[in-house]
Amino acid sequence: MPKSFVLVINSGSSSLKFAVIDSSTGEEVISGLGECFGLAEAVISWKHQGTKTQHEIKAKDNHHEYAIEQIVTLIESLGHSKQLVAVGHRIVHGGEKFTSTVRIDDKVLAEIDALSSLAPLHNPAGVKGIKAALNAFPSLPQFAVFDTAFHQSMPDKAFTYGIPQQLYKEHGIRRYGFHGTSHYYVSREAAKMLSQTVEESNIISVHLGNGASVCAVSAGRSVDTSMGFTPLAGLMMGTRCGDLDSGIIEFLIKKGWSQESVFETLNKKSGFLGVSELTSDARGILEAMEEGHKGAKLAFDVFTYRVAKYIAAYLVPLDKLDAIVFTGGIGENALPIRSEIIKNLKLLGFVEDAVANQAARFGQSGIIAKSELLGAVAMVIPTNEEYVIAKQSVELL
Amino acid sequence: MPKSFVLVINSGSSSLKFAVIDSSTGEEVISGLGECFGLAEAVISWKHQGTKTQHEIKAKDNHHEYAIEQIVTLIESLGHSKQLVAVGHRIVHGGEKFTSTVRIDDKVLAEIDALSSLAPLHNPAGVKGIKAALNAFPSLPQFAVFDTAFHQSMPDKAFTYGIPQQLYKEHGIRRYGFHGTSHYYVSREAAKMLSQTVEESNIISVHLGNGASVCAVSAGRSVDTSMGFTPLAGLMMGTRCGDLDSGIIEFLIKKGWSQESVFETLNKKSGFLGVSELTSDARGILEAMEEGHKGAKLAFDVFTYRVAKYIAAYLVPLDKLDAIVFTGGIGENALPIRSEIIKNLKLLGFVEDAVANQAARFGQSGIIAKSELLGAVAMVIPTNEEYVIAKQSVELL
Repeated sequence: MPKSFVLVINSGSSSLKFAVIDSSTGEEVISGLGECFGLAEAVISWKHQGTKTQHEIKAKDNHHEYAIEQIVTLIESLGHSKQLVAVGHRIVHGGEKFTSTVRIDDKVLAEIDALSSLAPLHNPAGVKGIKAALNAFPSLPQFAVFDTAFHQSMPDKAFTYGIPQQLYKEHGIRRYGFHGTSHYYVSREAAKMLSQTVEESNIISVHLGNGASVCAVSAGRSVDTSMGFTPLAGLMMGTRCGDLDSGIIEFLIKKGWSQESVFETLNKKSGFLGVSELTSDARGILEAMEEGHKGAKLAFDVFTYRVAKYIAAYLVPLDKLDAIVFTGGIGENALPIRSEIIKNLKLLGFVEDAVANQAARFGQSGIIAKSELLGAVAMVIPTNEEYVIAKQSVELL
Repeated sequence: MPKSFVLVINSGSSSLKFAVIDSSTGEEVISGLGECFGLAEAVISWKHQGTKTQHEIKAKDNHHEYAIEQIVTLIESLGHSKQLVAVGHRIVHGGEKFTSTVRIDDKVLAEIDALSSLAPLHNPAGVKGIKAALNAFPSLPQFAVFDTAFHQSMPDKAFTYGIPQQLYKEHGIRRYGFHGTSHYYVSREAAKMLSQTVEESNIISVHLGNGASVCAVSAGRSVDTSMGFTPLAGLMMGTRCGDLDSGIIEFLIKKGWSQESVFETLNKKSGFLGVSELTSDARGILEAMEEGHKGAKLAFDVFTYRVAKYIAAYLVPLDKLDAIVFTGGIGENALPIRSEIIKNLKLLGFVEDAVANQAARFGQSGIIAKSELLGAVAMVIPTNEEYVIAKQSVELL
């Protein structure tokens, strides 16, 4: 059987992550990253069979397009063009329109663009990536995999805000949730590792990266999640505030702040960065904390405490808990953060296995804590959004 | 020993609740309410020895002052003037300045006024009430009892938002919490009913009224609470939205809404009223729900689900849970709401005692559910903020 490769594109406003995935095995044939788009330092790099290559992007603008042209050249030079059967795009916001992965045509592209007001940081970048890829691969079918789609199974009590229903009916203001592909993947992997069917599994998936969210997954379906109408809500993140009293926004605007400066602050100057007054990066927070930096310690405490509260709250929508799953860059690697979250769950009976927690890093899965009280475990499972995107794209061919 | 009565005043923007309390027994000698201030229908009514009296307020404005003049006349006519030893005012926001009850002087009054930006609906009304009472009772000592004071024991991980620390240092933006007097009172009463000392008790206090909040109380000290910088955050309420994705506010402002209309909507047209599209009153919600009203059912579901999630989340800051305590107008009386919240806590082992739940209404305390899993109970305790205000005022004399 010939191999079916999928080019997976995750297009951000100033970066473009890509991978060529073998859709049957999940093997990452090529992986790469274009970054610093819009700046003179724009660069694209990739890894193939253990070798890293880096190229400057000399173009003055259109860095998304230039990056995708480079990817075309790269795939051709490696002789993989014929194996490439599809392009799969990670798109952040699908609104209520997209409840699963779809094949991209003009109508779908226009709809993704129309949803930009719901994810102003992300959807326009996704559209840029799709347009560049449509130009570069005119004969390949292309697919959009939405971060929101997995959460469309939430019941109304979980997705309804305490605001006039007219705002939902007219403007679609409701909880959507994000990181759906990751929550979908790790909750299914957790069931496998626990020798359960998806239907009998009850999982709380904790995706902690630069963006971060928690999701309650009952029988394979999302029933609640911490991000909301936008990816700003829920947990504290690298530079995003997460949950906030709306009265704070009123207060700042009355103090004379422009709405632009308020939301720029909440999106880009808050989170780890704002609380620590040091860095948005969890590794930097942990290092500074060891050296006695008070802001870093406060950021660590606020972050871990809030994650633990979300986990405990998500016992409500579940009939049973089988596993808490940590994933994402922080969730897969940051030992002290996982330790502290588990300590915070002591009243739910969770006890850390320190040796196992130490071992489950850098791509290693594992059970790191147990609760006799709930008959549940906490585990680490590296996420693999690219594999899900490749697989779902090929399934729709 | 002569009796020590305290006049307790709770001054709202369009109403003034008052009571004359025997500070040693908690007995309510007189209780009354001025309402519809600012309207032609302004009225004052009171209850004394089982008899209700109502007077129109004929003044065109200054209804707070007129109401307090009526109260003076009333107290004199009942011969209680000599027993009156103090006036205690319920004040909503004490910022970080007021960590306990204080005697009111010009400086305190100015500081309460200065804190109005933190509680624009409540503090200015409190100042109005204090000024009118100072005029009416120039020789009596007056005290301010703050809704926020009880929560000043929260650790920084609970009161810190995920925003630049500069906003805390410069503007005092942090979680303050409200309903402190109620959470203080019922958590202490719960310890008594469970034959515990305050120091060994671990309580989650659930105050559900037109305003609503949850508070985790460890050894008699507030360690976390659902309201925040303002009384807008946390649970959904009669007309307030509670927790909300900040991105929704950005979205509405970009759609052309003025900031005034956004925050008027979130404060006055949201909550039960906004979700049900029917009423802000929990009794009306329950009645309509029985008749099959879908909006009322949705409001009920969203409200009870969110309360349950907060209760579960507050297992994190506690070392043990002894009791969940329901109080406030809804918490003390609304049987189906308590039932649904307890059902939502099934994974924490809570099982309702339906007969006990039926009995604990209309001023009756009682244990209404148990969790074998956590070794905890859920109970109902009628709150008595007036008694606390009277007692704390007399203690400071």
